[in-house]
Amino acid sequence: MCSLVRREAFQTMMAIPVEEWAGLVRAGEVRALSRAITAVENHEPAAEELLRRLFPFTGKAYLSGMTGAPGTGKSTLVDRLAAFYRKREERVGVIAVDPTSPYTGGAILGDRIRMQGHAGDADMFIRSMATRGFLGGLARTTAEVALLLDAAGKQQLIIETVGVGQDEIDIVRLADCVMVVMVPGLGDDIQNMKAGLMEIADIFVLNKSDREGADRLQQQLDAMLSLVMPRDGWHPLVVRTVASENRGIDVLAATIDKFREHFAARGERELKHVEYWKKRLVELLEARVLDKFLGGAAGDELLTQLAKEVAGRRMDPFTAVNQIVAKSPI
Amino acid sequence: MCSLVRREAFQTMMAIPVEEWAGLVRAGEVRALSRAITAVENHEPAAEELLRRLFPFTGKAYLSGMTGAPGTGKSTLVDRLAAFYRKREERVGVIAVDPTSPYTGGAILGDRIRMQGHAGDADMFIRSMATRGFLGGLARTTAEVALLLDAAGKQQLIIETVGVGQDEIDIVRLADCVMVVMVPGLGDDIQNMKAGLMEIADIFVLNKSDREGADRLQQQLDAMLSLVMPRDGWHPLVVRTVASENRGIDVLAATIDKFREHFAARGERELKHVEYWKKRLVELLEARVLDKFLGGAAGDELLTQLAKEVAGRRMDPFTAVNQIVAKSPI
Repeated sequence: MCSLVRREAFQTMMAIPVEEWAGLVRAGEVRALSRAITAVENHEPAAEELLRRLFPFTGKAYLSGMTGAPGTGKSTLVDRLAAFYRKREERVGVIAVDPTSPYTGGAILGDRIRMQGHAGDADMFIRSMATRGFLGGLARTTAEVALLLDAAGKQQLIIETVGVGQDEIDIVRLADCVMVVMVPGLGDDIQNMKAGLMEIADIFVLNKSDREGADRLQQQLDAMLSLVMPRDGWHPLVVRTVASENRGIDVLAATIDKFREHFAARGERELKHVEYWKKRLVELLEARVLDKFLGGAAGDELLTQLAKEVAGRRMDPFTAVNQIVAKSPI
Repeated sequence: MCSLVRREAFQTMMAIPVEEWAGLVRAGEVRALSRAITAVENHEPAAEELLRRLFPFTGKAYLSGMTGAPGTGKSTLVDRLAAFYRKREERVGVIAVDPTSPYTGGAILGDRIRMQGHAGDADMFIRSMATRGFLGGLARTTAEVALLLDAAGKQQLIIETVGVGQDEIDIVRLADCVMVVMVPGLGDDIQNMKAGLMEIADIFVLNKSDREGADRLQQQLDAMLSLVMPRDGWHPLVVRTVASENRGIDVLAATIDKFREHFAARGERELKHVEYWKKRLVELLEARVLDKFLGGAAGDELLTQLAKEVAGRRMDPFTAVNQIVAKSPI
């Protein structure tokens, strides 16, 4: 049933010209947007053309990133924050990234369950992403999906990701405002925090703050933050929430607003965006080159054959790379 | 004093032709080897030529990878294992990678302290790596340093890395045999283990196993391993050690030998190496392309300028990449 619906949407979108498709995405039409995201995820040829057409209409959404260990209640927190934005009549897009889950099917099921609370609300869009490809990072796909939602007129974008590795850190780096979620008693005290997460947090969310140990965790956080130098005039704040009871969500939203205003006034956001685009252009260049030199079955065959030569020490790796470049000049 | 010694070695090596340099590395000459590693770390032009010449003489060393949280006693364990191999009259190379440390100086100091126990032993080489570059991953540099040590005749290579992120997982993936070190009472019980580490471990080392909680941790590990399917006929083993007292090191070495024989007999090691070289060739291709298109100050200037255009939505990212490719064809 589910796959039938998806296939139908697929065929409908494939049948229309890209410019019309782009127009539907800009209008926020849900099927066109869903189909565009799938095109981006699968690296379909139409995706680039679509993104190119939509790009001039992006850059308006505010992108919040939320990360934290499993069990910190991120999904509930995101859900409540999204509902809060909807009450303010802002259009909301949520991208939930879980690279540890190998099942896209599970992600889709998750979307359906999560969307139930927002059934019939066309200005609330939730999408989960779980798959990780060989030639193209999850961070890149997430960034492109964010562009699509931005072009579709979503004003508040929330990216939610489980904070486990470099991939996830790259993903939250996309965000204008980075939130790290912690809960008392999960064993993830400050000392155990992922290297790299601490430095990128703009706001710490102390969720499940009615639990035992919340005060101690807050003290630890405060002690650590007292040692941290403000970054561009911003000193990271700690916000206490109990997402399951909708407590503290208003304070969290107000803190995000405060952070946004702080950087809007200082112009650092633009600088950050230039740094971000430098990195993205390098990634795009890499992807372009890989596709050119090693795309398709023939590319994989060539790569395997050369790797065998190198593994057997019959060829050195530099000569092998030269052969790849020589076979298909850009 | 330290920097003077280094500069002298630098100048000596720069003055000789690469083929002579390669010959000295193959002979295991310590200064030539140290200087070659520095050349690889700094991506000096001579490094590629050196690696190319040395490559046919590699593929003989056995590469063990050891990872675990800070405080598990990895360094002591590696030190004792290295000493054990030296007693068996095997030539040993150790690469200690700590990407969380921004100070190469600290790493060098660490080497000096660690080498004290092996002073005057030319067949024992220890090198620490701590820096992380922009255009070239730590995993790639580590792999190239391992090739150098391999060419220099080291028979047992041990890579030691703190297990924190994707980088570190990529590094231990290099290894023929992957060991994950755990200790009782550190809070890093099975549930909290880094995603991805559990799946790649061939041997679990339960270090500080004279501490309280060791039996419980072993039970947890055994329970978890009983649920795991053997990989290529190998079921991960747990070895208990007290590295500080040199206990269990012989059993650990014997277990590594057993693992090595298991895979030597089955030919899977070669398959693994082909997969490894496929990935490495892709990385080399990317590095080559980046250097070609965006190398030097001019490259960075072009990239910054285009990123500004894109951030300001005056150009879309695909057009920007086209401009990079157009400016300097391969």
